[in-house]
Amino acid sequence: MSNCGAFPDAGGIRPIKYDNGVLRLIDQRRLPTEEVWLEYTDYQEVAEAIRSMVVRGAPAIGVTAAYGAYFGALAIEAETYADFIREFDQVCEVLAGTRPTAINLCWALDRMKSLVQANTDQPVSNLKIGLEYEAMAINEDDIRINMKLGRNGAALLPDQVRILTHCNAGALATGGYGTALGVIRAAVAAGKEVAVIADETRPFLQGSRLTAWELQRDNIQTVLICDNMAGYLMSKGAIDAVIVGADRIAANGDVANKIGTYTVAVLAKEHNIPFYVAAPISTIDLQIADGSEIPIEERDIREVTHIGEQQLAPENIAVFNPAFDVTPARLVSAIITEHGVAQDNYTEQLAAFVRQG
Amino acid sequence: MSNCGAFPDAGGIRPIKYDNGVLRLIDQRRLPTEEVWLEYTDYQEVAEAIRSMVVRGAPAIGVTAAYGAYFGALAIEAETYADFIREFDQVCEVLAGTRPTAINLCWALDRMKSLVQANTDQPVSNLKIGLEYEAMAINEDDIRINMKLGRNGAALLPDQVRILTHCNAGALATGGYGTALGVIRAAVAAGKEVAVIADETRPFLQGSRLTAWELQRDNIQTVLICDNMAGYLMSKGAIDAVIVGADRIAANGDVANKIGTYTVAVLAKEHNIPFYVAAPISTIDLQIADGSEIPIEERDIREVTHIGEQQLAPENIAVFNPAFDVTPARLVSAIITEHGVAQDNYTEQLAAFVRQG
Repeated sequence: MSNCGAFPDAGGIRPIKYDNGVLRLIDQRRLPTEEVWLEYTDYQEVAEAIRSMVVRGAPAIGVTAAYGAYFGALAIEAETYADFIREFDQVCEVLAGTRPTAINLCWALDRMKSLVQANTDQPVSNLKIGLEYEAMAINEDDIRINMKLGRNGAALLPDQVRILTHCNAGALATGGYGTALGVIRAAVAAGKEVAVIADETRPFLQGSRLTAWELQRDNIQTVLICDNMAGYLMSKGAIDAVIVGADRIAANGDVANKIGTYTVAVLAKEHNIPFYVAAPISTIDLQIADGSEIPIEERDIREVTHIGEQQLAPENIAVFNPAFDVTPARLVSAIITEHGVAQDNYTEQLAAFVRQG
Repeated sequence: MSNCGAFPDAGGIRPIKYDNGVLRLIDQRRLPTEEVWLEYTDYQEVAEAIRSMVVRGAPAIGVTAAYGAYFGALAIEAETYADFIREFDQVCEVLAGTRPTAINLCWALDRMKSLVQANTDQPVSNLKIGLEYEAMAINEDDIRINMKLGRNGAALLPDQVRILTHCNAGALATGGYGTALGVIRAAVAAGKEVAVIADETRPFLQGSRLTAWELQRDNIQTVLICDNMAGYLMSKGAIDAVIVGADRIAANGDVANKIGTYTVAVLAKEHNIPFYVAAPISTIDLQIADGSEIPIEERDIREVTHIGEQQLAPENIAVFNPAFDVTPARLVSAIITEHGVAQDNYTEQLAAFVRQG
């Protein structure tokens, strides 16, 4: 089967490639100094790639998990539908358990499961073929969706704009093009003069390692700062807007995103700077009323105490390492999706976007 | 001449030691993994130690510069007072130019120069002896002052308190004991139950490398976080107070301190958490009306793009690396000094403290 990447080059790398039964992921832990692609054909190894952050970013995790589900399905030896779906559910459960905060993971796996559930009359061999197509469709849809939401978001921006972004909600965090960086790419494509200020985003350094890397490749003007410098820049009038991605958006518009996002939102409010969230509707979780219900992943303290082999803190020091935080809807100026931009009354607007599905 | 460290052990390391004409500094760039002491007898080398951050922290820089001025004086071959003071002024100018933001540096050098200016009738040999004593007095005074301001600050704290601190305003940032951490040490000594949350403080990592290290040595409960996690902890009700040091305080109470301090102050205001600044009156610069006049040092971008030899960002990426920011007085709940605590009307109170000298 041919590479699903038949898209026109929209700007931005494609971090997830699938060709002839092999999934290839760029190892995001090794960027920006090394560009290494890893190959996968086994769902347990795909699960480990998500867990260990070879691939990260809510939409990218969803796309990767979909391929993982297909590999899991392919290896199932059951011949009856009932046996197959029972084993397939177990595969999906393993993949769903890799990262708790990003809802896109569950969304993609639900889409894969729905295909199986909708085809009770099909032989297992056909289900496997269908699942391969479905994973590829999720991948391609993601890029189309990002280009659409990018255009929707770009319309909000003035012709000259200095945008702060936190973490990496770029091509590397998605099937391609990006969400927050998709808005930036669309603004550049529309002829706007855009300068990006990228928070380095401790502890995993998605900003310095990934955002700076992919924007530099696209020749988009970028200045790297440490996370704690954003407030100073805002106080100096050097930031016009903030755009970030999201890992999960509750029904009321509360946004879970990379740790530090909440701080940026508080700073933006203090300085009357618009704070935009760009995410596909697959990030919206209507099952969750508000942000307090979103599970916040805590990760290995070594992410904080070490960089590579280098030790940054004394032995045996206590560390708290939450990977996400929740920004309340009241601090969010707009939520940019492929179905439109919600700017107030999030509960009603987000539900309407999801219904358009 | 004997070691000037005749103090009772007040807790906290003494990072600046002087004995028999030799200045010894703990190399703060190599903590927490290596405890290396460097020796100095030459003022140009002392200047370079300040510039390269072997020693850092406003009061510690002042103490170190005083010893540097003495070494510079000792090497002057002039025999007349007029020749001596001309050369001594040049020595002080070199030392004053090492770091632009911390006013304590100028304060300590002014104190050294005042001694020379007040003794026009003395032979050069006596001036040199006097300068050695003066440097040692500045060193010892600093510890006494910190213990005093520590007690003043501890009185503001409840019996159980979780304190966020940013950067290192500890023993390592002073002659000993610390300013912000001096308040914490005094609170612990007074029997209060104190837990410290230490921001790691990018890019130089004074929080993870220095604050965590010195509090761990004193068995003070400490949890290390990345700078961008403070907002999340505040939103969860896990911080009761913030205490930081200062590099310069303007006449109106605006505070220059390590980059990121302003962000913490904005967050503290958003969450109704008291934000305290602890600093000796030598940090107050009445010559400067407000924070906008304080020079903000920008440092080598390699501090952001690398940790040791490890590269964190793509080659040739633009970087902004301001080392300090300014927190406006309106965000400061109190300024804790050795002469008392200013809590409102900073212009009047700070001027009164300085007059007490």
